[in-house]
Amino acid sequence: METNSEISVLKIYVGSTDQINQQPLYEYLVFQAKKKGIAGATVTKGIMGFGASSVIHSYKFWEISEKVSLIVEFVDEEVKIREFWNTISSNLEAMKYGCLATITRADVLLYRSGIKHTDL
Amino acid sequence: METNSEISVLKIYVGSTDQINQQPLYEYLVFQAKKKGIAGATVTKGIMGFGASSVIHSYKFWEISEKVSLIVEFVDEEVKIREFWNTISSNLEAMKYGCLATITRADVLLYRSGIKHTDL
Amino acid sequence: METNSEISVLKIYVGSTDQINQQPLYEYLVFQAKKKGIAGATVTKGIMGFGASSVIHSYKFWEISEKVSLIVEFVDEEVKIREFWNTISSNLEAMKYGCLATITRADVLLYRSGIKHTDL
Repeated sequence: METNSEISVLKIYVGSTDQINQQPLYEYLVFQAKKKGIAGATVTKGIMGFGASSVIHSYKFWEISEKVSLIVEFVDEEVKIREFWNTISSNLEAMKYGCLATITRADVLLYRSGIKHTDL
Repeated sequence: METNSEISVLKIYVGSTDQINQQPLYEYLVFQAKKKGIAGATVTKGIMGFGASSVIHSYKFWEISEKVSLIVEFVDEEVKIREFWNTISSNLEAMKYGCLATITRADVLLYRSGIKHTDL
Repeated sequence: METNSEISVLKIYVGSTDQINQQPLYEYLVFQAKKKGIAGATVTKGIMGFGASSVIHSYKFWEISEKVSLIVEFVDEEVKIREFWNTISSNLEAMKYGCLATITRADVLLYRSGIKHTDL
């Protein structure tokens, strides 16, 4: 991924309680992306929403441990995002949960690696 | 909405304390979308931001009950998003609050309904 | 910025603990945008993610004071976003942190200023 290149943004809309092999689905997706060398991943949590399962979720109605909407976003060059998608799509299709995955494009203004650090 | 189709993403930037008929505006928008059969909706909460009213909001400066920026996002086929927009736009235009609504396109990699469930 | 115009959306992916001159980087970016008259800014916080520094961050693994992924988003006409970018890009490039900045386009369905108010 380079400054002034075009990248793809993959967004996967999942529920916070969706699981795959007893692991939260969003964690599985982030760890798979890390293993595949995807440049960046961010999980953001909705405070309210509904999706393919058509039930409205909200912090106001449910306790914090209940299902809320999550958006799991991955960024990298298109070819890397497509490769990553190919490794996870059959697992997503096999699940019983509703799921939406979309892809868009973005132009990179700046990309630089940080000095590797342990964050502690 | 189908896998490999193009969809529209409608984003409405509102304040968390904005109200319409004594109801939080973001809740009104999500419930309207549900009623109109929109495929998905997600409300995400900013930790800091400013908008049309030009006042900076932040969790650091204000209590949790005060105004923060919200992004209310809706996804569906363009024709359904435009229809939904037509039902809510006059209400948004009539409000005293600042407001920004934008629309972009995205390609669907996967869309599947979940097994209907009650989430408990 | 006007209804039915095209705008640019600048997204800057930073860590919550990144600093510039002893100030949180995301705050610096929002205040700079406000000073430059940018129409809107929203900071959203990820619950999990990794980026240019390639370390996975999560609320589950780290305390709330530790580093998480932030997406700082700015919206305005392309010319204003480019001007704003020119004022901040050299500072971002000089930092030791990893950083990703992307730009996309969006169509404005509605933009209106709110009645100026003090929010209290």
